[in-house]
Formats: sequence, C-alpha cells, structure tokens
Amino acid sequence: MAYEGYTTFTASQDEGVLTVTFDFGSVNVQGQEMLSDLNGLAMRLERDRDIKVVVFQSANPEIWVCHYDTNLLKDMSTEAVSREEAKLLDLQAVLERISKVPQATIAKLEGFARGGGHEFALACDMRFAARGKYKFMQMEVGMGILPCGGGASRMARQVGLGRALEIILSARDFDADEAEAYGTINKALEPDEIGEYVDTLAKRIAKFPAESINACKQMVYESIDKPIDEALKAEAYWLYQATSKTPAVKRFQIADDQGLEHDIENQRNWNKLVMDVQNIN
Amino acid sequence: MAYEGYTTFTASQDEGVLTVTFDFGSVNVQGQEMLSDLNGLAMRLERDRDIKVVVFQSANPEIWVCHYDTNLLKDMSTEAVSREEAKLLDLQAVLERISKVPQATIAKLEGFARGGGHEFALACDMRFAARGKYKFMQMEVGMGILPCGGGASRMARQVGLGRALEIILSARDFDADEAEAYGTINKALEPDEIGEYVDTLAKRIAKFPAESINACKQMVYESIDKPIDEALKAEAYWLYQATSKTPAVKRFQIADDQGLEHDIENQRNWNKLVMDVQNIN
Amino acid sequence: MAYEGYTTFTASQDEGVLTVTFDFGSVNVQGQEMLSDLNGLAMRLERDRDIKVVVFQSANPEIWVCHYDTNLLKDMSTEAVSREEAKLLDLQAVLERISKVPQATIAKLEGFARGGGHEFALACDMRFAARGKYKFMQMEVGMGILPCGGGASRMARQVGLGRALEIILSARDFDADEAEAYGTINKALEPDEIGEYVDTLAKRIAKFPAESINACKQMVYESIDKPIDEALKAEAYWLYQATSKTPAVKRFQIADDQGLEHDIENQRNWNKLVMDVQNIN
Repeated sequence: MAYEGYTTFTASQDEGVLTVTFDFGSVNVQGQEMLSDLNGLAMRLERDRDIKVVVFQSANPEIWVCHYDTNLLKDMSTEAVSREEAKLLDLQAVLERISKVPQATIAKLEGFARGGGHEFALACDMRFAARGKYKFMQMEVGMGILPCGGGASRMARQVGLGRALEIILSARDFDADEAEAYGTINKALEPDEIGEYVDTLAKRIAKFPAESINACKQMVYESIDKPIDEALKAEAYWLYQATSKTPAVKRFQIADDQGLEHDIENQRNWNKLVMDVQNIN
Repeated sequence: MAYEGYTTFTASQDEGVLTVTFDFGSVNVQGQEMLSDLNGLAMRLERDRDIKVVVFQSANPEIWVCHYDTNLLKDMSTEAVSREEAKLLDLQAVLERISKVPQATIAKLEGFARGGGHEFALACDMRFAARGKYKFMQMEVGMGILPCGGGASRMARQVGLGRALEIILSARDFDADEAEAYGTINKALEPDEIGEYVDTLAKRIAKFPAESINACKQMVYESIDKPIDEALKAEAYWLYQATSKTPAVKRFQIADDQGLEHDIENQRNWNKLVMDVQNIN
Repeated sequence: MAYEGYTTFTASQDEGVLTVTFDFGSVNVQGQEMLSDLNGLAMRLERDRDIKVVVFQSANPEIWVCHYDTNLLKDMSTEAVSREEAKLLDLQAVLERISKVPQATIAKLEGFARGGGHEFALACDMRFAARGKYKFMQMEVGMGILPCGGGASRMARQVGLGRALEIILSARDFDADEAEAYGTINKALEPDEIGEYVDTLAKRIAKFPAESINACKQMVYESIDKPIDEALKAEAYWLYQATSKTPAVKRFQIADDQGLEHDIENQRNWNKLVMDVQNIN
C-alpha cells in the first residue's frame, strides 16, 4: 500500500514505522488541503496492518503544524446553535479519526504547535518535544472562540482541570519544560536527543503485533470515558479481540517453557524476553 | 454594578479584574456569612460581562480561607440517608455555583487553606500558592467525615487517583512544593513573586472577550464529564455560542489580512498578535 | 478475626494496620493460589472494622508481585467475543474487589512489579516505590494481549492519556523516578526511607475512624466515574453514612469548644488537633 499523492506532507515507510513529514508552504498551515490529506491518510491506515507506528514531524525548522487556516476561520458562522443542532466540525472529525487509527501515533515536536496545530498534537497518542524549539499556545480565547478541534475536550484528559484551564484561558506560549511539568507532553528532550528517542520508541513498538497495539490503544481511550465496571468488561472484550488474531498463546507457551515463573534470572531479563518472542508468530 | 455590602470580604474592581479580599474575624471562618456572601457574589457575577476575572485573596497574613464553621458541623445530622434522599449541601451548592461563574477564577493562596477552605480553592479555575506561607490539609477523615464541599469529587479531577487518595486519607499538611508536585495547584511561587504573577495573568485574561472566556471554561468542565464524542459536540455548540457574541470573525479577518499564514515572522509573534487584536471589536 | 491460612502471603496485624507480605516460590507468581488468597483476604477485610490500613509488601528481595501465571495464560481462549459476551476475568474481579475494600491500601514497592503485578499495584489506593529496587513494566502488548487485570482501565485514572499510552504501548521498564514523574506512583523514596515513610503513613491513617476512611475512599473512586452534579450528591450520601457511625459530631463539638475558629494559634496546630481528637469516640 503506497502512501503517496499527498499535498501537505510526504510519508516514508521503514519496516513498520511510517514517518509523516509536513512540508506545506512557509508555515504548514492547517487548511482544507491538510485536512483532506489527513483524512486520506487515516483511511489507509485503518486498513493497514503492516504499519504499526506513525511519527508526525515537520520539514519546517520552526513550525511543526500551524494553526487552522484563518481564511476559513474568518468565514465562520456567527449564528448560535442549539445543543441538538451542534454537529462535529471538519477539524474535529478528522483529528478524532486520526486519534483512533489502529497504529500508535507519535508527535515529534521540534517547532511551534499553536491552536489547531496543538490540537492535532493532542489527538496523537504520545507527544515528545525539543527544548528551545518547541512552543505551544492555545490562542483561541483571545480570538473570540475556544479550542474546537478537540483541544478543549482533550486538554483535561492530559492534565488536571486547573492546568487545563490556565493553558486555555491564558492564551500564552508554553515551552517544552513547562509542557512537561504541566503534562501536555510525555517528555521534553534536548534537540539532539529527540530524534533518537522517538526513533527507538517507534521501532520498538513496531515490533509488536498490530492487533495488540490496537487493543491497548482503543482500550486506554475507552477507559476514561466509562465507569470502572464497564471499562473492565471492555478490557475483557479487547483481550479476546487480541488473542483471536495474535500469537499470544504461543508466546506465553514459550515463556512458560522457559520456566519463567520459577527463575529469578529470567525475571530480571523481561526486557530481553519481550523482544525475543517477537519472532514467534 | 457595585460589588459592595459583603460581610466577609471586600471587592475591588480594576478594569476587568475583580479582586475579592477575605477579611472576616481572626481566621476567615467559612460559615453562613461567607456562604451567603459568596452566593450573592456569584449571582452578580453571572450577570456581569465587564468583569472577566476574579482573584480570591486574603487580608489575613496566615489564613487564606479557614475550614467550614465547626459551630455548624457540630450540629450535623447523624442519620444515614438513602442515595435518593441525598441532597446537595449548602457548601457544595455555593462552591459549585462559584465554580461555574462565567469569569475566570484564580485562588491566590498565601496562607493556610484547610478543609472547606481548600475545597473552595479546588472550586476555583486556577490555583497559585506562595512557598513558605501556603499549606493545605483535608482533615475530614480524622474528624469522622469526608471532604464534602466538592473536595472528594474535585480532587481526582486535579490529580491522579493515588495522590487524591493519599491527600484525603492522610489528613496531613501539604506545602506549596508538594502541592505543585502532586498537581493540586498550578504552580508554587516565591512569596514576593506571586503577586505579580497572578496580577499579570489576571490582567491578560481580562483583555479577552467575556463570551470566549466563558465558552472555554464551561467546555473544559463539561469535557471530563462526557465521553469524547459528546464532548466534541459540546465544543461545536460552544463555538457558535462564542462566535455569535464575540468579534471572532473580525479578528480572524485581521489576522488573515496580515498574511499570517504565509509569513514566518508573523508566526513567531503570535503572542503580540493575540494581544494586538484585543482592540478589534 | 485471624488472618491466617494463606498460601502465598503471611499477614500480621499491629493495631489497625495489617501487613501482608508476599512470599510464594522464587518469584511470587500471580496464579490461582494468589488470586484465591487475595479473594479470601478481601472477604475478611470487608467485614473487619478493626483493620483500617493494609500494606502490601514482599519478602522477595527482587520481586514485589510477579506477573500473571503464564501457565494459565498459555491456555487462554483464542475466540473473539462480542461486547455483550465479555465477562469479568478472574484477575479483574479479584483486583477490583481488593480495590474497594473498606480499608486504605498501600503498595510498598521494593522490587519488580510487571504485568499483573503492576496491575495489582494500580488496584491499591496508594503506591510508594524504592529507588534502585523498583521497576514496573506492562509487557502485554509485546506478548499479543493488553493489560487486562484492570491495568488498561486504571492507567489513565492515574496519569494523563499520553503517558498512559506510552507506558502500555512501549512495554519497557520504568524505574521509580520515572514512575513518580509520570504519576503511576505517589512518590519515589530511598530504599532506607520507604519503610519508615509507609509505616508512619499507615499508622496515622489507622488512627482515624473506619467509617470515614471507607467513605473517603469509596467517594474518590465514585467521583471520577460520575458527572460533577451526581458526584456531589454522592458526597452528601457518604457524609451521612459517615456521621451515622463515627464520632464526628462529638469531635467537632470539641473543636468548637476550644474556640478553634477564633484562635489563630489553634489554627496553626491543626495537625496536633486532628490527632488529639482521635481518642474522642
């Protein structure tokens, strides 16, 4: 399956990792071209079991992904709607679709991510940012709107209410260290470290079975939207979704045959074991 | 609209910022007078679009807001009720009303906040605390009750379950640095820095449109109470609530006219841009 | 009530603290014997109002609790089930029961906790880990399944989505400091400090009334599973559950008699007061 023909990014595949590199005009504006590309990308990813991880990065030395296109924003409706009439916005629909692709998604943030650009980062599974290069801002409150590409919804799923409210109400830039302290990103890294860190993580995850990656990911998202008793049942559902398609039983047989549970030396080396069994299919 | 006639605090207005200074007896006890004042304050704030931000501080050098009045607590009912019979308590009702006022609310914590006093802080949108002066405690478990001014409910919306449970079950004092590490406050600040930090933040937010402040705030609170698909629809609802009343379209037109999306120099200066457009109405 | 006859751990009672020490084979495997013991333990704890706190530790110098028994995992069903057919797994049911016992539960982590072992730690109310000795890993994704002992469900209730997804998708070891930074544990402590830290905390909580410990704990868990308006009503319900069985009214009478709310000196000494009233019943 070829990942070609996009206008706003290029995509290159290396074993199970797809690296998507935004490169669109001077600032990687998030407009209809990018939404169309992202929607097309998601459609392909949903049917692809060879790609296990997607890394989103930028060719632009200063901007990861820019905010939503002001050329679209200036024509927004100014008519209030009722709760029932409110429908998903294009940006929301595309980012939610990206958020739930079966692959693990990583935002590798080496430049600005503001407004819709930051909302896109929040729709990825994980976020790593380069010190000195990364800044994020949700400026919407100052423009007269709110972060409506999932940003208002996803912010409090990443950080506590108080910090979510400060980020969204202050409309100021946060750097990588503040982002790490507040919890919007997983980790802040040095600019010369982030490449290897993300690469190692992506390649590691890409060795794991596609169906267990998907089960893990969907379950974590389901979990916070359900009371614990329903969440636990969803775990059981996803367990059998996974075991029906992965070599789980064979791998546990191998682990059992090695006498894993009676041997402290084997227990010390779980990190090796989990990688060793990746060739058991 | 005058913010006068309160017994337990004074309120002074400086442009869009209302500073509420608790000054009631020797310890700022949280009794019927304070609840009555806070309820009256909320009622006014709900109809006021000129005030954008409320800062809660204390005139008492050691206590921000004291715990709930023991004179009321000693007369509590000792009769268990059914789930159906359980009704909102006065403290819960008032703090929930304060929590949802259309303004951004900031707790500027330069003294003790224990029991109901800390629950009041948790009902504010943001919390900043002075090192060496701030301490918080939820002592309820040791008194034979639980934090029932929203504290048990709001704690796990600020920090993870494990830390929420430790705070509530240990009934011990936490200082500003521990509060920051555990995430109950946004930031710990030096005593000589907190004034300017809060002032700068409050004045910044106060420049933004009242309706987008309200939309942002209500949406963040809604978000964690709803599954993601419903939360996203709520964002769309609040978007048009905002655009129908704010100069959003004009501001994005200005941004677009400046060629924002084709100019890296403009992108670098988003912080300036977001403040510059505040005079476009 | 005697806590005896267990195969996989011993339990010793010191006033209100029950210390459960896992000591089963070479690696403390989490198999049917341990589940059976834990289920039996929970059954007793549910009826015991003398034990207020349970500390879970290990006699094994390297392993706290091992992962789920591979001898059971290798025989897992490989048939997908529908959402309706999905039923609680044994590990889920037992850990959920442990999670909701009326006592405060503390995981004292001085060795590895991987897979189901870490899921057991997540089912405890609080977690403290020893630097240099503790490591945790959720390796399930690499084995072809997902953390299905409540781990996928409970992870995002402890940390934000991004870090929960990294932990579960990377299947790597995290040490005590990373665990603290990501928020899966309450605190990382030095190996020679953790004993006293946990002991002090456990003894402190054990002085408090059983019914208020239970009310606090159940309410925090309820809180994140309910919208705020329902959560607040649950607080009111638990308040009267507590006051109907604890000496709360008498204790607040004492506090009131001491003129607590008019005396700054008394306010400074809340930590002393909360312990002093523990003999008022």
